[in-house]
Amino acid sequence: MPGYHRVVIVGVGLLGGSVGLALRQRGLATTIVGVGRNAASLQQAVTRGAITDFSESLNVACRGADLVVVGTPVQSIAEFVKNCLASELAADCLVTDVGSTKSGICRQLAGSEFSQFCGSHPMAGGEKTGVAHASADLFLGKRTIITPTAQTSTQAVQRTDQLWRSLGSDVVRMTPDEHDRTVASVSHLPHIVASALASTTDSSLIPFAASGWGDTTRVASGDVEMWRQIISENREPILSALRIYSQGLSQWLSAIESGDQTAIVSLLESGKSARDSSVVS
Amino acid sequence: MPGYHRVVIVGVGLLGGSVGLALRQRGLATTIVGVGRNAASLQQAVTRGAITDFSESLNVACRGADLVVVGTPVQSIAEFVKNCLASELAADCLVTDVGSTKSGICRQLAGSEFSQFCGSHPMAGGEKTGVAHASADLFLGKRTIITPTAQTSTQAVQRTDQLWRSLGSDVVRMTPDEHDRTVASVSHLPHIVASALASTTDSSLIPFAASGWGDTTRVASGDVEMWRQIISENREPILSALRIYSQGLSQWLSAIESGDQTAIVSLLESGKSARDSSVVS
Repeated sequence: MPGYHRVVIVGVGLLGGSVGLALRQRGLATTIVGVGRNAASLQQAVTRGAITDFSESLNVACRGADLVVVGTPVQSIAEFVKNCLASELAADCLVTDVGSTKSGICRQLAGSEFSQFCGSHPMAGGEKTGVAHASADLFLGKRTIITPTAQTSTQAVQRTDQLWRSLGSDVVRMTPDEHDRTVASVSHLPHIVASALASTTDSSLIPFAASGWGDTTRVASGDVEMWRQIISENREPILSALRIYSQGLSQWLSAIESGDQTAIVSLLESGKSARDSSVVS
Repeated sequence: MPGYHRVVIVGVGLLGGSVGLALRQRGLATTIVGVGRNAASLQQAVTRGAITDFSESLNVACRGADLVVVGTPVQSIAEFVKNCLASELAADCLVTDVGSTKSGICRQLAGSEFSQFCGSHPMAGGEKTGVAHASADLFLGKRTIITPTAQTSTQAVQRTDQLWRSLGSDVVRMTPDEHDRTVASVSHLPHIVASALASTTDSSLIPFAASGWGDTTRVASGDVEMWRQIISENREPILSALRIYSQGLSQWLSAIESGDQTAIVSLLESGKSARDSSVVS
């Protein structure tokens, strides 16, 4: 089990806050310093026990840290990592993140000066955001994809792997591009599908929605700015997944228009068998 | 509270079985006779307490009944209602159903000889089918749409209303066409959306799916033949809803292709506000 002397969490939201809670509950860290701009939200994180202290200054927070976790929206992650490394950060401090996209971030952090950084994406969370929903067990039994690159030091890769395992997560390594293609299909596309379904439902009919509509649209409740950044960062893989999905929907339209029962059964069976093959509840 | 001397449930699946359990738990019926072709499944329904007895003969079952609930797949409901009324059914016996479509059924049952019939659709259930998942509280706090027509006797309408209220459901009246347009949007389209998403996800990526994909595809696990019949029965309203949804998806594709952040934010906000307006959990 790794133990940390001083942990810095930049952006103490659902994921960052859950890292803090999980580390403390497991006795892996005593000092956890939150960094952010919103003092009220950081105070709430202290009250919840996700951090022990907070600072508005990244420089002050990073002094003496041996782990920095960046939990900000994806489009500011690379900048925060750069700022950490430009601070008086110890040479053996691991820097990682919890962002939902990886290629753009890793591209911005290409170069030997970023060998302490290893990207992470714990596939946990959901449509609820903020430290209020953070949980010490959020990562338990969930998968974390880590995305080391050629420049990432062996030690940083190993320590990132250990970090997530120590919080109960399974760890899988992928390249940043593999990661982004994967999550475009299994996370980003579902958000768009759900959002389009919710927004095209006639508002007068929503009172009649039951659990089917509720499940299928649930993720559409997610934070708008967070999702804008994800979609912007992962544009090409999302477009590719969305085009494949649209073709699937066209097949549905043709099958129903022509009343082709065999085609309808085949589409239903294909959807059912894919869903049933998943271990997700 | 209505009470029943002898209830007949034709097709003791999730909904039919739940009607039986709910009636018994509330002390509203002592004798509940299941009718079906599968003796093993009917025996299971007896063991679960959903029915007290069963028969392969609709004629035998209907003798002396004061309530018949048809819970078969939608394309056989009208036929079973006709067969009930052709049996030695008492003139004051209420006949209703729990089917997910209404126009086709009501069209087949047009005529004064069907004044004892009033269509019902309890909006409860989900992707799990069969009496094994039946529950006495399935209808509690859920909505049931009832679809009386010009021919339905006032008594049949009132008794259908009372039946569902006595099982804890809210009751709303609609015409069969209004019902079918409503459920095309809030139930049938979500099934197609979920099924298309599940089937177009590359199978090698499904192991990386988490709760977002899981929620958005959940209903795709539903019974194939049940859904084939629903889609076939409710063709036009589903096509109309599917076309509107496809247009919404095209807007997404354009917005991402052109990188139009304002359009992306507007789409995300529209989806979020629709989802957040719903009372579904």
